[in-house]
Amino acid sequence: MSSVRICFVGESFVNGTGDPQCLGWAGRICASACNLGHDVTYYNLGVRRETSTELKERWQKEVSYRLPLEHDGRIVFCFGVNDTTIENGKPRVDFETSVENARHILKVAKQMFPVLMVGTAPVADLEQNQRIARLSTAFASVCDEIDVPYLDIFTPLQTSEVWIKEALANDGAHPRAAGYAELAQLVQNWQPWLSWFK
Amino acid sequence: MSSVRICFVGESFVNGTGDPQCLGWAGRICASACNLGHDVTYYNLGVRRETSTELKERWQKEVSYRLPLEHDGRIVFCFGVNDTTIENGKPRVDFETSVENARHILKVAKQMFPVLMVGTAPVADLEQNQRIARLSTAFASVCDEIDVPYLDIFTPLQTSEVWIKEALANDGAHPRAAGYAELAQLVQNWQPWLSWFK
Repeated sequence: MSSVRICFVGESFVNGTGDPQCLGWAGRICASACNLGHDVTYYNLGVRRETSTELKERWQKEVSYRLPLEHDGRIVFCFGVNDTTIENGKPRVDFETSVENARHILKVAKQMFPVLMVGTAPVADLEQNQRIARLSTAFASVCDEIDVPYLDIFTPLQTSEVWIKEALANDGAHPRAAGYAELAQLVQNWQPWLSWFK
Repeated sequence: MSSVRICFVGESFVNGTGDPQCLGWAGRICASACNLGHDVTYYNLGVRRETSTELKERWQKEVSYRLPLEHDGRIVFCFGVNDTTIENGKPRVDFETSVENARHILKVAKQMFPVLMVGTAPVADLEQNQRIARLSTAFASVCDEIDVPYLDIFTPLQTSEVWIKEALANDGAHPRAAGYAELAQLVQNWQPWLSWFK
């Protein structure tokens, strides 16, 4: 049995916004690990509307505070969708800066803790999804380059009936319980996540 | 239907440490509110081992970051048990400082947001419980003085078979799912909490 403390860091999709069960995908995968007998301390540090530029300034202090070095601390990141939202005629964070932010955040983080990166989720807007898909591909390259496991969730969720249907019926971006459960399944079956509980 | 964003701020009991369902009492009461049709964004800012002295330096930045003024933000505090732990022959935070910390934190917080205070929970150690009970009474007075609703959970949980049994079988302090569900019931039936969802 492993005893770990995990910080989930990112935006509203990490927070689980829209899930009436208040677990999101992060809570679900930690509960599953607990039910298999693992001792998991679950810290959810998802913040609504946060861009990667904002996250870059925030994550280290909040994470360090929760993961003292005498314990087995881990980080799972998941961010980027808010960067692609159009405001005043342009994305909130331009593509190159998003990629640079991801590289910086992940490089610093992996010197401190084991790190995983869960990719960008699709929303119910075809145009924004093009920008999200491009970012997901670029994040995958960055992660490959610096040796951080990356999970592409855009591809499977883009064709998920539940994810898109719940997002459309909600606010156009966030699903409800079934959508988060579907995303949780993807992460839960992912080898790099499973390897944390061997 | 109300739309609120709530930060739960405090120690491991806020985090829900020990609950294999990864909800704790805070997640349970937010899920209940959601199931009644309310739109609740749930931010859990519980940190293990944190004293009130540490919390005093931390809460404001993390809360302000999550509760932009254009949204309906709220705070529920629950802290103090770690103050009463003996280290090097004395409590980690002495009684007078704990009380002063609570007064300071709550005074500042209530100028910014609607605030509730959930009291200190008993543990499975009779001696420490005497210090916890004393703190709970003092916190109740402070809250009365500065007009913040305070929920005494020490009295009911002290005689709760589930709470004490689960804490004993676990690590001596934190219950499992049933204990947290019992605490959730106490908060959920509390008038000041219910009044947030009228």
